[in-house]
Amino acid sequence: MLHPDRLFAPDRTRRALARRLYESAKDLPIVSPHGHVDPRLFADPQAAFGSPADLFIFPDHYVTRMLYSQGVPLESLGIAPADGGSVERDPRAIWRLFCTNFHLFRATPSGLWLRHELSQVFGIDDTPSAANADRLYDEIAEKLARPEFSPRALFARFNIEVLATTDAATDTLEHHRAIRASGWGGRVLPTFRPDGLVNLDTPGWRKNLEALSAVSGVEVTDYASFLRALEARRAFFKAMGATATDHAALTPVTAELSPQEANTIFQRALRGQADAADAARFTAHMLMEMARMSIEDGLVMQLHPGSFRNHNRLLFERFGPDRGADIPIQTEYTHSLRPLLNKYGNDPRLTLIIFTLDESTYARELAPLAGHYPALKLGPPWWFHDSWNGMQRYFDQVMETAGLYNTAGFNDDTRAFCSIPARHDLWRRACADWLAGLVARHIVDVDEAHEMMIELAVGLARRAYKL
Amino acid sequence: MLHPDRLFAPDRTRRALARRLYESAKDLPIVSPHGHVDPRLFADPQAAFGSPADLFIFPDHYVTRMLYSQGVPLESLGIAPADGGSVERDPRAIWRLFCTNFHLFRATPSGLWLRHELSQVFGIDDTPSAANADRLYDEIAEKLARPEFSPRALFARFNIEVLATTDAATDTLEHHRAIRASGWGGRVLPTFRPDGLVNLDTPGWRKNLEALSAVSGVEVTDYASFLRALEARRAFFKAMGATATDHAALTPVTAELSPQEANTIFQRALRGQADAADAARFTAHMLMEMARMSIEDGLVMQLHPGSFRNHNRLLFERFGPDRGADIPIQTEYTHSLRPLLNKYGNDPRLTLIIFTLDESTYARELAPLAGHYPALKLGPPWWFHDSWNGMQRYFDQVMETAGLYNTAGFNDDTRAFCSIPARHDLWRRACADWLAGLVARHIVDVDEAHEMMIELAVGLARRAYKL
Amino acid sequence: MLHPDRLFAPDRTRRALARRLYESAKDLPIVSPHGHVDPRLFADPQAAFGSPADLFIFPDHYVTRMLYSQGVPLESLGIAPADGGSVERDPRAIWRLFCTNFHLFRATPSGLWLRHELSQVFGIDDTPSAANADRLYDEIAEKLARPEFSPRALFARFNIEVLATTDAATDTLEHHRAIRASGWGGRVLPTFRPDGLVNLDTPGWRKNLEALSAVSGVEVTDYASFLRALEARRAFFKAMGATATDHAALTPVTAELSPQEANTIFQRALRGQADAADAARFTAHMLMEMARMSIEDGLVMQLHPGSFRNHNRLLFERFGPDRGADIPIQTEYTHSLRPLLNKYGNDPRLTLIIFTLDESTYARELAPLAGHYPALKLGPPWWFHDSWNGMQRYFDQVMETAGLYNTAGFNDDTRAFCSIPARHDLWRRACADWLAGLVARHIVDVDEAHEMMIELAVGLARRAYKL
Repeated sequence: MLHPDRLFAPDRTRRALARRLYESAKDLPIVSPHGHVDPRLFADPQAAFGSPADLFIFPDHYVTRMLYSQGVPLESLGIAPADGGSVERDPRAIWRLFCTNFHLFRATPSGLWLRHELSQVFGIDDTPSAANADRLYDEIAEKLARPEFSPRALFARFNIEVLATTDAATDTLEHHRAIRASGWGGRVLPTFRPDGLVNLDTPGWRKNLEALSAVSGVEVTDYASFLRALEARRAFFKAMGATATDHAALTPVTAELSPQEANTIFQRALRGQADAADAARFTAHMLMEMARMSIEDGLVMQLHPGSFRNHNRLLFERFGPDRGADIPIQTEYTHSLRPLLNKYGNDPRLTLIIFTLDESTYARELAPLAGHYPALKLGPPWWFHDSWNGMQRYFDQVMETAGLYNTAGFNDDTRAFCSIPARHDLWRRACADWLAGLVARHIVDVDEAHEMMIELAVGLARRAYKL
Repeated sequence: MLHPDRLFAPDRTRRALARRLYESAKDLPIVSPHGHVDPRLFADPQAAFGSPADLFIFPDHYVTRMLYSQGVPLESLGIAPADGGSVERDPRAIWRLFCTNFHLFRATPSGLWLRHELSQVFGIDDTPSAANADRLYDEIAEKLARPEFSPRALFARFNIEVLATTDAATDTLEHHRAIRASGWGGRVLPTFRPDGLVNLDTPGWRKNLEALSAVSGVEVTDYASFLRALEARRAFFKAMGATATDHAALTPVTAELSPQEANTIFQRALRGQADAADAARFTAHMLMEMARMSIEDGLVMQLHPGSFRNHNRLLFERFGPDRGADIPIQTEYTHSLRPLLNKYGNDPRLTLIIFTLDESTYARELAPLAGHYPALKLGPPWWFHDSWNGMQRYFDQVMETAGLYNTAGFNDDTRAFCSIPARHDLWRRACADWLAGLVARHIVDVDEAHEMMIELAVGLARRAYKL
Repeated sequence: MLHPDRLFAPDRTRRALARRLYESAKDLPIVSPHGHVDPRLFADPQAAFGSPADLFIFPDHYVTRMLYSQGVPLESLGIAPADGGSVERDPRAIWRLFCTNFHLFRATPSGLWLRHELSQVFGIDDTPSAANADRLYDEIAEKLARPEFSPRALFARFNIEVLATTDAATDTLEHHRAIRASGWGGRVLPTFRPDGLVNLDTPGWRKNLEALSAVSGVEVTDYASFLRALEARRAFFKAMGATATDHAALTPVTAELSPQEANTIFQRALRGQADAADAARFTAHMLMEMARMSIEDGLVMQLHPGSFRNHNRLLFERFGPDRGADIPIQTEYTHSLRPLLNKYGNDPRLTLIIFTLDESTYARELAPLAGHYPALKLGPPWWFHDSWNGMQRYFDQVMETAGLYNTAGFNDDTRAFCSIPARHDLWRRACADWLAGLVARHIVDVDEAHEMMIELAVGLARRAYKL
């Protein structure tokens, strides 16, 4: 059984406070403004999750990277290599391998999420192991076949108020359309992500650009028509319910080009002649353009730099992206964001939410910036830092300088739909525990802590994302 | 009511120890060797603080930046734009706006300081709010009119042993002169800050140089006379009681130039032709010259790099400096300080106190350096890190390697005179709590902890600053 | 008396758990796979430690740097300057100076180690001071003269299962040979450290190269013979029991050269014409060659970059290396290790153990890398971070992402043989306390914590180092 007081500090005073604060927020709806769940799951009322391996293992790069790091070949986890090499196809065998290695997840966030999921979604309180692997497989598979375990049924059971997906700017949003057309009441919103267009070095950029022309109805031949096409897509996403855009970049460098300079680079890219420096300058410029468009159309802008993608070349070539080999790099915000913030950061119409993988910037750069510029908010602890200790560092290094009200609540940022309640529960427990510590030290009083708890659970995210 | 055990860990054993340690130090005098209080407040026995807004809001960029970050225009806080735009003039209206937004300061150091000030200085234990704003205004205004709330009276009530101000190298120190001439017993000392002269890119450098010639009696025409003029000013500050100098720089880079090179740059600056590289090299060189002069005249040298000033250009142009838009940058010490430390760091006559805004350097660079070079001491957690959690990080990341005795006690570094007791109280509570943790874990014994407590409260600062 | 619960959190629940976990591991043998103890101590059955000053002061740069930082001249600690200046020769006088300044070690790891050593090895529970210095000296000196205080006797008493030394690649390993020949049962293994050969800028490189030719029997005249000689030495070390190699570098940059490029640089070095850039490129290349050789011969590869050696030039010139003036620098791993990891990181035959002096890389770079690449393991908190708080940061910033099983247990990394039990005890207490916190928060259960405790104490180190 999951302990009802799990994660709370053992000190009696603080634990009692934490429990009360948590109780006041645990049944609030889930607001999920940023994530990667496949909207297809909700477009078709008959959609199902597949086998236990489909649900717990393949889509979760946190799981596959940890197993891989200890010598488990990806092929044996059912991940097929591009070179046509052999791959394990039996989901039960894959599940067994996962259960046999479950000790690897001790004291990791994945371990906490997986146990929460097994317990709260499937009623399984045993720790997976070689001995019980087959029994657990059967139990989960049996449940997944029931209608009350369909994605839509779980969406309701999870009490999700709103779920935002992340979608390429060229996406037709057909699944979102189907969801709306179906009359189902779940609120699933798209998010506009133009990385494949504004980052000129994206593999397949040329193809993405053609797709842009096709879906936008704007023939993109130069920088000006490129902007018009992007604006058209933003308007379309907004009409489909989007409230936000999402941007990845290796660095948060921003710098404005003249339209002529931008077009010169764009033309080089069209001819396949743009180099890495061109791409970097163009991204830096387009981040500023995106801020400008956000001011005009009201979409909230999200930026999360600092991930070196596909660090392991061999794995990337054999298995493709998102296999656990994205590694953070050091990131600089003070100089990098200055051009954008100087031009747009004082404008109350802009909301720019920043995420980081470099925690050394929390207290040094990001909290001071967010505690000053009206447009800037800090996103929650992200990716490798979406963890118990990552949250402690976030609270301790961000809140004193940025202030709670310049943060943006929680994001689960997950592909693994069934882990959403586990992730929000971990956040809410961390918030309750943090606030209990503040109350126990008489830094805030109980009433203030209760208000802050609700803000952290739902209020900040609703407001920051205009939901 | 402020809780008597506020900020102490809730664990019963540790809290009892913390309380005892705190009790032994809470009534010790305040030693304030570095700050920005206006000496005028003490020069005139009739000086007063003005309205509650004058006292709590205008001079405190921690307060104004947080309000600004949440969309409160600076004009509505009584800060006049240079462009002659409208500004709120009614201190009561400003005070109301501050009280209405007081929730923004939850869990921030400003929130703790403000509540301590209201409670301990003005006897007000209510949390400010829209509802009680007018009542609090009246209460504070009434008290500020009384003689026992004059700056000199509060100086005595606060039990301040010594208060150092920070003064431009060209300052005539007339207010310090007036304080000494008045026969009043308070010890208020100047600190020599030559940034406006040694940083060639300071706006108004030429004017500062003329002021230097005027006040020093040395006609500054070249690098050699520049040094003579600075030496004369240091001697004057020392004669006026100064024990320290204070230096800001974007980076802590130090590097010696030959007198010829230094003069070449200086002559370019005189002709208005020095560029950014010249300025950087000259600053790097002048830091070494300042160390050399410190060895000769015994003034303690303080260096606090790493703040990118006036990050928000719009705000700077409309409202001037010190409006909350100074943002830290990453800082490198190991290579940067090496030239200075290699030349002067083994000399027992030098005391160089370093502050940082980049906490990632605490355990990596600064503690190892301070734990080795006889001349080097580490200043307390500074600015954004002068906070409960900033102090925890300082204790945990500095003390094990630097050793307590290579640190320099506490600085309040404030413009807000009435916040001085609050800031020292927070530090003393943090020290007591830290030491209580060490005793509870049997890392030091109670007697050692008591000695360390007194050192942290007053001893280290007195010795490091030669007070 | 050392408190039996020292270092454990005061919270009753957590402390009781910590005590039980610690009890289960405290009497396990010591596995010491990386350190700097002189093998001579065990080669001769009659070897002795010398005076108390020889044991506690001279060889411990943690001790001498702290005393030096507070103005104690190295000469007065018995460290002779190269310029023939005077030096204190009386070990009792040196011991007195150390005891008089013992307060400097309050709350430092040295303080904890020294008190543990005095208490557990010598039965002395007094805190050293000026008052008891002579008495303590006599007590220790008397004990050191007894046979049960010989290095071999203490090796047995300390319950050391295996002790690895660190040895230049050109070392004849005569002391290791003598140990093996003596029939004594203690397991003391060499470790292959080729820094003086692969880092072309090492002072005395040319001499080292000649020694390499001499000991390897391979006449080194070019890059190819250089590799052959290194391979021969590795084979010899392996035959003498070595299971690992050890590599220092200023940065962890890795980059492969063609054999022709490598030989061109090597020839320049032979002619004394290699510059700093050559040396950096050659080191980056040789790290890759060392990984290649490790795959071939199975020796575990250790890399610990980031120390700027001999920062204090004056001290280096007067007293030589290892006098406490090695200062960490910021370190980058994501880009730097990529060439090596891309070529060899997926190979299960390689074990690469990384240490860092830049803790900002724990959660950002090292834990994500170790949580992905099969070849990579993270070494324990190192040097300045081998401390109570350093261990907390390591647990909190590494374990969630890397996973416990991608770490390599503990290293004491010490020259001070008698401090080995103290260092392992501190680690085991820190582990017990950390795991107790996880159990108290219900993150792992008690059985899991017990398994993890044994892994941390001995299992991870045994497996990572193939012992």
